[in-house]
Amino acid sequence: MIQDAVPLDDRGLDWIRGGGEAEIVLSSRVRVARNLQGFPFPGRAGAEERADVVERMRAAADHVESLEGGSFWEVDSLDPVDREILVERHLISRDLLATSRGPSSSALVLAPDSSCGVMVNEEDHLRLQALVGGLALEAAWRQVDRLDEEIGALLPLAFHHQFGFLTACPTNVGTGLRASVLIHIPGLVLTKEISKVLEGISQVGLTYRGLYGEGSEVVGNFFQVSNQTTLGKTEEDLIDHLGRVTGKVIDYERSARSVLLAEAPSVLEDKVWRAYGILRAARSLGLEEMMNLLSGVRLGVSLKLLNSPRVETLNEILVCGQLAHLERAAGARLSEQEADVCRATYVRDKLAKDERDAGQAPAGGTSDETVVDGPPSGG
Amino acid sequence: MIQDAVPLDDRGLDWIRGGGEAEIVLSSRVRVARNLQGFPFPGRAGAEERADVVERMRAAADHVESLEGGSFWEVDSLDPVDREILVERHLISRDLLATSRGPSSSALVLAPDSSCGVMVNEEDHLRLQALVGGLALEAAWRQVDRLDEEIGALLPLAFHHQFGFLTACPTNVGTGLRASVLIHIPGLVLTKEISKVLEGISQVGLTYRGLYGEGSEVVGNFFQVSNQTTLGKTEEDLIDHLGRVTGKVIDYERSARSVLLAEAPSVLEDKVWRAYGILRAARSLGLEEMMNLLSGVRLGVSLKLLNSPRVETLNEILVCGQLAHLERAAGARLSEQEADVCRATYVRDKLAKDERDAGQAPAGGTSDETVVDGPPSGG
Repeated sequence: MIQDAVPLDDRGLDWIRGGGEAEIVLSSRVRVARNLQGFPFPGRAGAEERADVVERMRAAADHVESLEGGSFWEVDSLDPVDREILVERHLISRDLLATSRGPSSSALVLAPDSSCGVMVNEEDHLRLQALVGGLALEAAWRQVDRLDEEIGALLPLAFHHQFGFLTACPTNVGTGLRASVLIHIPGLVLTKEISKVLEGISQVGLTYRGLYGEGSEVVGNFFQVSNQTTLGKTEEDLIDHLGRVTGKVIDYERSARSVLLAEAPSVLEDKVWRAYGILRAARSLGLEEMMNLLSGVRLGVSLKLLNSPRVETLNEILVCGQLAHLERAAGARLSEQEADVCRATYVRDKLAKDERDAGQAPAGGTSDETVVDGPPSGG
Repeated sequence: MIQDAVPLDDRGLDWIRGGGEAEIVLSSRVRVARNLQGFPFPGRAGAEERADVVERMRAAADHVESLEGGSFWEVDSLDPVDREILVERHLISRDLLATSRGPSSSALVLAPDSSCGVMVNEEDHLRLQALVGGLALEAAWRQVDRLDEEIGALLPLAFHHQFGFLTACPTNVGTGLRASVLIHIPGLVLTKEISKVLEGISQVGLTYRGLYGEGSEVVGNFFQVSNQTTLGKTEEDLIDHLGRVTGKVIDYERSARSVLLAEAPSVLEDKVWRAYGILRAARSLGLEEMMNLLSGVRLGVSLKLLNSPRVETLNEILVCGQLAHLERAAGARLSEQEADVCRATYVRDKLAKDERDAGQAPAGGTSDETVVDGPPSGG
């Protein structure tokens, strides 16, 4: 059974505990676009048709094993801060918020461990998705594939014998699959190798963007790399291709870091310590500056120039340092200035805690084991 | 008796322990220019004449009560790093180094507590000087006045019944007195009131310059304010005038700080904490950046936004974070890059110690008592 409209709490944050290559690859995501036979795509559907799709998915969810014990939310029934929190956790898209129109217009279903879920009535009726920590595209794909089979057995999906799955946007037709990795590659940026690497990525049919989806600027050296094409290849091939390219990018990033460490160790050390020092001290901190500083600290932790914080803490800050998460913690809407002050306080406290756990600052030791320490309540 | 060529150690650093208004006024300095009858001014004197002046002052020093137990150094006999250390401590001028030519060309005599001393063969034969912590112009003047009387009783000084004391540069004729205060006025800079204040200073016959003497740039909001004229007024009047104007500047600075605290408390708090955070974290630190950051921290300590470090520590860092002091501590000449790394390490260690003494960081408490804690050996 699925529960309705439970508090969001920490749902969707499991990925922050990391996984393989967690220092460079923050998370792996796979989604497939699916649509119900006999319904207009959401962009063309009327209110009743949209509500009908939501209702069908809600009813089916109770019988989907992957979602057993999970939760269901009608997006418009959530308070505005919770809606933004879902966006900040990448559980729903900003597009879903923009196109949602009143009750039962769109919805989210999430497995109890947040490992997978379904976004209802975004661009397509269903977006089946999985988000996993570290480099784990196959694991994410297995979850989505299973979810797809389970849902396909309950709901009639729009499928064409020649084109494959039909989708609202032709770029998704076929497998309907989009796989992506969120990677942190400051070494390539600092050594100015990044443009070559991004060019290479484009040449092999992949694409990249910033942390916040399509068209978003790259901030803090965080890149989302994903497949461009969905047609003409099997899902396994697409996943495998992205995984192999990501592996190469990781190798390039490691080489770039070695070069930096060899050529300008004190410059690098200074850079990462200053980033840490500012995050530990600032009393007001904008989101973009925070992300840039987190990038420096992440690099420092990865290279063992810093012995705290843990990578998990850095992941958590990246999510929970965003506006809606800060508003939830403050119990109030915040002006930009207020948010900057709350963000600075949140970051300082988080880092101070990790510093104490690691047994003080000065560089040298290592502490990048990912000890689990529950993130703060966000719902 | 005077000792010859003893190690410099911490001589000349007594002022860092502060005094009245120490948060805004770092130090008060008074010097008078004196010349020996019958000798050409140093700029015109030959090697033998210069050596003769040095020898006469050396011989007299043994009988000057103010200097009893003090030390004597021939500047050219010092190793190059020690010479630079004397400049960095403002005990000799860079001009003295520039004009000094071989053995016995120029010298320094210093009282055992460094409170006063004599620079020999700079622009004038003798520059009698006193350097005291905080706002203490009268105390500094009393020391110089006494030294002047004692030396005048032993050596025939060039004096004209109408012009007063004769000096190499006409701008010093008369009293030969230059009194100055080193003040830290970030509030006036941040509120942009500074140009008005500096204009006012000029209008009342005073002048200002940066931390490193004539023509030096103002860095870190540290200004040296001194009298412009030496003629036509008594020494007491000149001292009194500078003291009263300094008192007004202190009042203006306090008002400016109140305005800043009232209008943008979180901006100010953020600024001082970031400065502190960078100083605590940086692994490479240029001199000018250090001074600017020290300015922020000093303001924060003064406003009790930071509860460490002590003002004395900030004064000490301002002196001992300079190149020659770092070289002495490292036991080697340093490239700029090496110096920046040594400077960062020195500053971090100093601040960490004060932080421990103050019992941890987060703002709130107060700890601007000036507990005496010997500065590091510099000789």
